[in-house]
Amino acid sequence: MKRVEPVKVALLGCGVVGAEVTRLLHEQAADLTARIGAPLELVGIGVRRPGRDRGGLPVDSTLFTADVLSLVKRDDVDIVIEVVGGIEPARTWLVEALTRGKGVVTANKALLAEDGPTLHDAAADGGADLYYEAAVAGAIPLLRPLRESLHGDRITRVTGIVNGTTNYILSAMDDSGASFAEALEQATSLGYAEADPTADVEGFDAAAKAAILASLAFHTRVRAADVYREGVTEVTAADVASARAMGCTIKLLCIAERGPGNGTGPGSVSVRVYPAMIPRNHPLASVGDAFNAVFVEAEAAGQLMFYGRGAGGAPTASAILGDLVAVARHRLAGVRAASESAYADLRIRPIGEAWTRYHISLDVADRAGVLATVAGVFAKHNVSIATVRQSGRDEDAVLVIVTHMAQDAALAATVAELRELDTVRAVAGVLRVEGE
Amino acid sequence: MKRVEPVKVALLGCGVVGAEVTRLLHEQAADLTARIGAPLELVGIGVRRPGRDRGGLPVDSTLFTADVLSLVKRDDVDIVIEVVGGIEPARTWLVEALTRGKGVVTANKALLAEDGPTLHDAAADGGADLYYEAAVAGAIPLLRPLRESLHGDRITRVTGIVNGTTNYILSAMDDSGASFAEALEQATSLGYAEADPTADVEGFDAAAKAAILASLAFHTRVRAADVYREGVTEVTAADVASARAMGCTIKLLCIAERGPGNGTGPGSVSVRVYPAMIPRNHPLASVGDAFNAVFVEAEAAGQLMFYGRGAGGAPTASAILGDLVAVARHRLAGVRAASESAYADLRIRPIGEAWTRYHISLDVADRAGVLATVAGVFAKHNVSIATVRQSGRDEDAVLVIVTHMAQDAALAATVAELRELDTVRAVAGVLRVEGE
Repeated sequence: MKRVEPVKVALLGCGVVGAEVTRLLHEQAADLTARIGAPLELVGIGVRRPGRDRGGLPVDSTLFTADVLSLVKRDDVDIVIEVVGGIEPARTWLVEALTRGKGVVTANKALLAEDGPTLHDAAADGGADLYYEAAVAGAIPLLRPLRESLHGDRITRVTGIVNGTTNYILSAMDDSGASFAEALEQATSLGYAEADPTADVEGFDAAAKAAILASLAFHTRVRAADVYREGVTEVTAADVASARAMGCTIKLLCIAERGPGNGTGPGSVSVRVYPAMIPRNHPLASVGDAFNAVFVEAEAAGQLMFYGRGAGGAPTASAILGDLVAVARHRLAGVRAASESAYADLRIRPIGEAWTRYHISLDVADRAGVLATVAGVFAKHNVSIATVRQSGRDEDAVLVIVTHMAQDAALAATVAELRELDTVRAVAGVLRVEGE
Repeated sequence: MKRVEPVKVALLGCGVVGAEVTRLLHEQAADLTARIGAPLELVGIGVRRPGRDRGGLPVDSTLFTADVLSLVKRDDVDIVIEVVGGIEPARTWLVEALTRGKGVVTANKALLAEDGPTLHDAAADGGADLYYEAAVAGAIPLLRPLRESLHGDRITRVTGIVNGTTNYILSAMDDSGASFAEALEQATSLGYAEADPTADVEGFDAAAKAAILASLAFHTRVRAADVYREGVTEVTAADVASARAMGCTIKLLCIAERGPGNGTGPGSVSVRVYPAMIPRNHPLASVGDAFNAVFVEAEAAGQLMFYGRGAGGAPTASAILGDLVAVARHRLAGVRAASESAYADLRIRPIGEAWTRYHISLDVADRAGVLATVAGVFAKHNVSIATVRQSGRDEDAVLVIVTHMAQDAALAATVAELRELDTVRAVAGVLRVEGE
């Protein structure tokens, strides 16, 4: 068999994921060569501190360099893997690589969600592949199915648990009755939450992934800024107990949903991230611990679910290497994958136009006429009530109301007006309810 | 925008799935054109009876022809979709199409499992794409993730529920305590089982899918004949109750598992289909009704699960159209997908070498020394016992034994010897147990 020139790879970043990538490249070298048809050669690793001791990594220490831009520009580099994260300087490096025609494999969800179009445009200019399976739901093969397998179908809705940290926290609250603060502390001590957990618990991470999923599912450019976002910091133990009482559990969901257009328009899409109650018999309800899962509904395919580890060095590296094999094969064949598909260009609906249901807990004075007054507020906003449950008496009376489907604007206006009622001492909790 | 020549498609077969394909081609025409970059044109439909009334199909009646071979050979046909099924004449048609360089999209699991290499060789000869996502687990995007997303990883095990008919039957038995015959009748009346259910209930359908999955997961040519197969016809209500008593449920599983080689060899693969008990907390246990799910374990990715509808006209058509878009794009770009990957060529292990656990129910005489005699048989074959439970007394005594992991040959030899014991009146049930 004739000797085939290796495909040359530059790795940007060598933290947990990058180290795992070097390990897999080394351990799976023979298999990767057979699957690609040529060996992969790691020719450089861009890091901030090249001199740092990285004992145990199966790579030559001379490969490390702090001059990342020069590495990216090297003529002999065929493919760039980026696991640094953040907007800059990652964007500059990747745009440079793509416009020079180098394939790019990245796990950078923040950059893709904030400014994906710039990367896609650079890929189109350079005639280069841009792959990012690892950016959403770690090891779960999700983007390729959305990008390719379901291309003959019409996706109507994507509902996902895409943030492992918050899923761990909400699962712990559900299992043990812990408060948010207690569950967060537990997650931090186990390494599931970072020292500054803001990006996770405030839903920014999930919103970035929601933007990427929505873009692929609906052939429309959706950015993180287009995603309505609420985090989980205000979910209380009482909310969790209340969910349990109605046969539900609370999950931080990312939802991307096709909807009607404006009159004769081409339709619209609603993309949102918030904690919501879902019935315990929903396939997503049993996704515990730090696992991720994404539920996809399509007109012909029906309901599909993808489940697996959403984070961690090895799972993320698995997704990166899957992409790397695809890009390397394309280079050897002299082709590139289908580029970004954004032809549908659907209108992004604001949260007020989203259809959902509310679960509302009211602290009320237990006296005649309270329910009539409260119900009157719902009626005024054309929000239909599905169930009402009163617990406690006298000064401790609590009214729990679950609505039928209504537009979020009407539901929010209802809650705002309830807060003003004399007979309502406090709106103790408001959570959306998803899934029938 | 300049007018692009259409990609011309021939459809072979127009039953439930074929009709759904014509419907989707019609309804999604604008979206498909945008996603492919050229319109698709259905130029012929090969059927046995072209004159048959197919009211409501959105196609010109002149497209129908009984001369399928001529249709396949037509110079203007770019892509052939085959939804006829069976070995011949489908094989002849597809080999003809592939060697002429036409892309093929097929749902024909029987042909792929019986003689996949012939199709793959023809595809290689003709430089043509061969796609078959619809052949396994209907609409679930499964083959593409195995073929591509996980190519940088090392799959260790694939465990699937890939036959909807038997899953419906076993779920019904579990839910209601029905017998196999009652559950089959129910499945038939609801259209989940065919008039002749042999292919489903005897595990032939699942074995074909297991061969296809194992081939992709382990880069090795595995044929249906290589798959060890047991159906579900001998699963009794007592087995189901016994499974329930130990916190398990019974599912018809297809298992493809990497294993050691012979000494210094490159490893081996065990591929088998049989009903087995799995713990109720296993992700596959909650896959009810006629749904399919496939659980994949890989070294880096960890545990993944894919879930959805495994059969039905629309879900199958969704998978076919996803493949069709990929093949059409490749034709426009003048490329083809990576061909079959069978480089690993692992040895297929016989069932006797598979590691599993047995759940054995024995009708025994309730007298001193019985357990010692029975335990002696297990010890003789080096099979370690995990749990023993005795129920009933005197003439109705039943001994339920669950083993630790052992090779199937040793387990089978143990059961054979137990049947010969005077103190064992009958071996009432033997089922394998999978999942820890």
